[in-house]
Amino acid sequence: MVHAPSRPPVGAPPVRINLYSDTQTRPSLAMKEAMMAAEVGDEQFGDDPTVNALCDRMAALMGKEAAVFLPSGTMCNVIAIRTHCRAGDEVLAHETAHILSSEGGTHAATTGVQIHPLKGARGMFDADTLRAAIRPGGRYSPPQRLLEVEQTANIGGGGIWPQDQLDAVVAVAREQGWATHMDGARLMNAVVGAGIPAAEMVAGFDSVWLDFTKGLGAPLGAVLCGSAEFIGHAWRWKQRLGGSMRQAGICAAACLYALDHNIDRLAEDHANARTLARGLRQIAGMDVEEPDTNLVFFNPAGTGLTAADLVGALRLQGIHLSMLGGRIRACTHLDVTAGMIEETLGAIRAAVAKG
Amino acid sequence: MVHAPSRPPVGAPPVRINLYSDTQTRPSLAMKEAMMAAEVGDEQFGDDPTVNALCDRMAALMGKEAAVFLPSGTMCNVIAIRTHCRAGDEVLAHETAHILSSEGGTHAATTGVQIHPLKGARGMFDADTLRAAIRPGGRYSPPQRLLEVEQTANIGGGGIWPQDQLDAVVAVAREQGWATHMDGARLMNAVVGAGIPAAEMVAGFDSVWLDFTKGLGAPLGAVLCGSAEFIGHAWRWKQRLGGSMRQAGICAAACLYALDHNIDRLAEDHANARTLARGLRQIAGMDVEEPDTNLVFFNPAGTGLTAADLVGALRLQGIHLSMLGGRIRACTHLDVTAGMIEETLGAIRAAVAKG
Amino acid sequence: MVHAPSRPPVGAPPVRINLYSDTQTRPSLAMKEAMMAAEVGDEQFGDDPTVNALCDRMAALMGKEAAVFLPSGTMCNVIAIRTHCRAGDEVLAHETAHILSSEGGTHAATTGVQIHPLKGARGMFDADTLRAAIRPGGRYSPPQRLLEVEQTANIGGGGIWPQDQLDAVVAVAREQGWATHMDGARLMNAVVGAGIPAAEMVAGFDSVWLDFTKGLGAPLGAVLCGSAEFIGHAWRWKQRLGGSMRQAGICAAACLYALDHNIDRLAEDHANARTLARGLRQIAGMDVEEPDTNLVFFNPAGTGLTAADLVGALRLQGIHLSMLGGRIRACTHLDVTAGMIEETLGAIRAAVAKG
Amino acid sequence: MVHAPSRPPVGAPPVRINLYSDTQTRPSLAMKEAMMAAEVGDEQFGDDPTVNALCDRMAALMGKEAAVFLPSGTMCNVIAIRTHCRAGDEVLAHETAHILSSEGGTHAATTGVQIHPLKGARGMFDADTLRAAIRPGGRYSPPQRLLEVEQTANIGGGGIWPQDQLDAVVAVAREQGWATHMDGARLMNAVVGAGIPAAEMVAGFDSVWLDFTKGLGAPLGAVLCGSAEFIGHAWRWKQRLGGSMRQAGICAAACLYALDHNIDRLAEDHANARTLARGLRQIAGMDVEEPDTNLVFFNPAGTGLTAADLVGALRLQGIHLSMLGGRIRACTHLDVTAGMIEETLGAIRAAVAKG
Repeated sequence: MVHAPSRPPVGAPPVRINLYSDTQTRPSLAMKEAMMAAEVGDEQFGDDPTVNALCDRMAALMGKEAAVFLPSGTMCNVIAIRTHCRAGDEVLAHETAHILSSEGGTHAATTGVQIHPLKGARGMFDADTLRAAIRPGGRYSPPQRLLEVEQTANIGGGGIWPQDQLDAVVAVAREQGWATHMDGARLMNAVVGAGIPAAEMVAGFDSVWLDFTKGLGAPLGAVLCGSAEFIGHAWRWKQRLGGSMRQAGICAAACLYALDHNIDRLAEDHANARTLARGLRQIAGMDVEEPDTNLVFFNPAGTGLTAADLVGALRLQGIHLSMLGGRIRACTHLDVTAGMIEETLGAIRAAVAKG
Repeated sequence: MVHAPSRPPVGAPPVRINLYSDTQTRPSLAMKEAMMAAEVGDEQFGDDPTVNALCDRMAALMGKEAAVFLPSGTMCNVIAIRTHCRAGDEVLAHETAHILSSEGGTHAATTGVQIHPLKGARGMFDADTLRAAIRPGGRYSPPQRLLEVEQTANIGGGGIWPQDQLDAVVAVAREQGWATHMDGARLMNAVVGAGIPAAEMVAGFDSVWLDFTKGLGAPLGAVLCGSAEFIGHAWRWKQRLGGSMRQAGICAAACLYALDHNIDRLAEDHANARTLARGLRQIAGMDVEEPDTNLVFFNPAGTGLTAADLVGALRLQGIHLSMLGGRIRACTHLDVTAGMIEETLGAIRAAVAKG
Repeated sequence: MVHAPSRPPVGAPPVRINLYSDTQTRPSLAMKEAMMAAEVGDEQFGDDPTVNALCDRMAALMGKEAAVFLPSGTMCNVIAIRTHCRAGDEVLAHETAHILSSEGGTHAATTGVQIHPLKGARGMFDADTLRAAIRPGGRYSPPQRLLEVEQTANIGGGGIWPQDQLDAVVAVAREQGWATHMDGARLMNAVVGAGIPAAEMVAGFDSVWLDFTKGLGAPLGAVLCGSAEFIGHAWRWKQRLGGSMRQAGICAAACLYALDHNIDRLAEDHANARTLARGLRQIAGMDVEEPDTNLVFFNPAGTGLTAADLVGALRLQGIHLSMLGGRIRACTHLDVTAGMIEETLGAIRAAVAKG
Repeated sequence: MVHAPSRPPVGAPPVRINLYSDTQTRPSLAMKEAMMAAEVGDEQFGDDPTVNALCDRMAALMGKEAAVFLPSGTMCNVIAIRTHCRAGDEVLAHETAHILSSEGGTHAATTGVQIHPLKGARGMFDADTLRAAIRPGGRYSPPQRLLEVEQTANIGGGGIWPQDQLDAVVAVAREQGWATHMDGARLMNAVVGAGIPAAEMVAGFDSVWLDFTKGLGAPLGAVLCGSAEFIGHAWRWKQRLGGSMRQAGICAAACLYALDHNIDRLAEDHANARTLARGLRQIAGMDVEEPDTNLVFFNPAGTGLTAADLVGALRLQGIHLSMLGGRIRACTHLDVTAGMIEETLGAIRAAVAKG
């Protein structure tokens, strides 16, 4: 379930159509101009006005008291878990969660927590599953301290948690006295896809972060939001882990630009994903999951081609896709046009026909 | 899946028949006499002859180079994992393993490892399941470092790993370059039950420990065995965690006594367990797992009584049983006679009849 | 400053006079009889009456709400620091403190704390020194959380903290909102030496422990005392580190015996230490520190013999002493009689005369 | 000894002359143009050509096999220590080292190491001091694993380690089998100041990093260099701590620009520092340390003004200085001109005259 770096086959041309990941978007010229124009200061002394503006804006967007700018989404997870939990605590999360499979065991290493993996379709679990995982207490069990949810669920096919399901698992957490944390790597895809305001969607979460390097197109950065007290503690760990930068406003300016220009347009990525899924489904033997957002998972096994065969064949034409656990993942984003989707579909049809 | 301490119901008489746990055995007079007669020294300087004798004997029994005496089996697990692994590594173990459910999250807390839970009947998994859990490598995954096996599997009903299944999972570990560790809390029950010499049974394991406080009847202590280099490192952690004692030979003498007198007799406990299971199976509606060793798990739901009802009713007659995850566990040991088994069966039949 | 295990020179006879360490006392026959007679139970379920009696008695003696029995003093320190602190905190202690020099770096490893070393004569520091170590706060500094004091100070020559000095450093801690912890490995030596009741001496400390394996003569065990809430958290770590035992009452009985019989007699050890110091001081060139309790540090350099020479020469006569940082340490205890002190003085005089 | 963020007094004008810290330099227009022109890719997949070019160049400059780009110097220290050491190890460093005083206790928290503080003038220690700190070995001591050196020594007044002193402490480390790590936050100031090529200066170090946000003027980023194997391990921790970014080439481009344009000019900063020191020394009662590089520490106590008074008075004129432990620190850098130095001297003379 780990997303391995791509090694192009020998003789592969440069990538023309990058459906590999929305992390590979390049900052646009307009975004770069905003970066150059940014007023900056020493952010770790609180003196960078652009970083401060981004944090204020994100706190408002998420309906939280405060926010902190960090170099990556992984650091948001590390710091949030480190702040909510103590060594020996247990976190409850889906068995495909990024914190469990794709962060190198960091939460055991840096915080000392155990993560209890929950089952459920499409990267989501329901309140009954969560309730069944409650431990009896006592000195033999790790204290359960935190519920973690990934919105959208990456390995779950970019699925959006139904709001009532989200509310129901939060209700279990509240009843048990657990804190709640949302990995919002692609949260704005869920917000745009579901048509629910972000602050409303994440109201049940004590902490939530948004990654700006995926569909939002910034080169680096993520913002972690929570109560003023939580963010105060988070700052200590930002300092301790080396996430404090200096004139970071240059990078924060790209994030502010993305908030202004790159959110509504996520709807185009979702439309492109649906077009791709529809086209794939018309190929006999192709097993396709219906996309909620910008991720399309499909399995060509029924066409006679393995996932690896098909990904390899497309890569030789400059079309770049990723594989996760035997399936293919196509990821739409602001560098992918409707025309590229058609071209990709054509190339897949040809590859399948060729067999 | 956690073994909660027992709180007797109001008005409960003293326990006469203790099937709650083999941890509750009391040292016999002969064992205590051996303790009193022990020659002792400062064990953390290597100067306690009785501790040294126990370690030598255990290393020979397990076919390993060296051994170290520790206050508990949990500390054996903590130190073994701490010695085999680094922060950020992953350990593979059954989802019901003691290290995952009953040690308070200690391995994340003290070593910083993540434990990957494997499925399988009776607390055991097979080579295919283990192989399916191999991660692809790369920077996103925690490095997989250690295979852990529990022999006998406690929550698995005291089951003995079939030797070929044990060898097969060890073979996967070897192929992957993982270390192997056996939690041998009740290893001698497996040895006696299977009729395989201990050294042969554990030959594939880099480290293995035996608990002396369960069926072997000593008041405290466990011995961890492995290579001389491994035990050298383990000693550092014994010191760091506060497992180094002084004239510990008094306690080691009880363990030596147990090695001499309390191993072969485990066969009686197994016979008592089979008798109990056979008797329970004759009660209509009683769901009983066939015991491999000294643990009998059964579920009275089909008789119309809940597990809690039945345990409570027996406790009022001085018969003490435990509950784990909705089932009842009866544990035979050297303080439980064949007559007590008959009496217990009679009391259960009466309780069911009364409804 | 580390206490290295002794390796006897080739041809050395057995030790007849053991001034090496009070950790090497052997349990007396009467103590062993008390052990054998102990009523026991499963201590990790709270069912061992002898362990419970020891904890109740120790809590009363120290004037604290609760207590927990542990296999060693090092584990008391590990658990107390783990309970008071979080990863990234700072502990303030003397630069010769046992927690800094003799516990293998465990507090960084298991709790993640930094220890700030303070200077001061005889293993003690004063309020001004402590005050000068206060950090300015802010995100760059580790939060200071705990004051640790060793009573008596081992490397400090077994010195007893003057009560007003102890009160003054505690006052600084209170003012700063720090918790306070006493390493009372040899606390009863201080109590007997100063003639101050234990509860009064340790009133300013949130946690305190006493080791039973030193002058008190038990084979293993230490008891950590504090508030009921503190001991509740400590129990979790006792479980996690593997400090939970089973029929530990056998060992607790030795501690109860020691409380009854081996405290007042510490005065004899102190008298023997003073006799030894007085005798040593009469040897020309011998540099001798005046003992407060049962430890006598002396340096023979002025006599023309090195510490190593003198220790080696005495060991060949069955007299065992230790070296710490170039000095010799003689430790009196219940296995050392006044006659042995005279014999040791004679042997030292002879060795010096021989040159 | 911690560098606290500055809070301007009420009514203070904007800062015109920023001698507070070289971390507060702003990227120049030319540097920003280089950033905008950078070719970028997904750096955590090794696909960012600008990041790769920076790492290649830094490895060559430092004479090491490989390098990794990180968001901050603190993260370089965290990752280097995490890679060299295991939990329970000890690091030897100067008592004023940044890793000990200004990184929030992170090395105990994230790696579990204890730092042994060494004494010595100007933030440096000599081989004898280092040798005196060697522990005797054995299970009671933390294993000593790493020598850490700060070049230039910040709290030591920006002093440059004499090369033979550096070589001598490295020789002790080699003899003991320790790894060696250099905190090169201001390494290029030492290189320019001493006139020794970087690769020659750091030849004895297994790992070394350079911060680009200080005198080199970039907005964020530091590069850690070492063997290929070391950097391979470091990448795992970059991923685990959240130091992996995406199109980080935009920031790396600023660092490449700095290597081309901002190194030789550090000599101007050093000249300005000497001018400032010379001028200060002419003020009666001013205690001034002779600067090796770009940091001038001085103490006005002898003039009748406290450090706080003088810093406050200057801040009201838009001149910003910092205080560390009762002394004033002036830091010269590329945003400070010779004229500003004269203006600052004039303002200080006036403040002292006014009294």
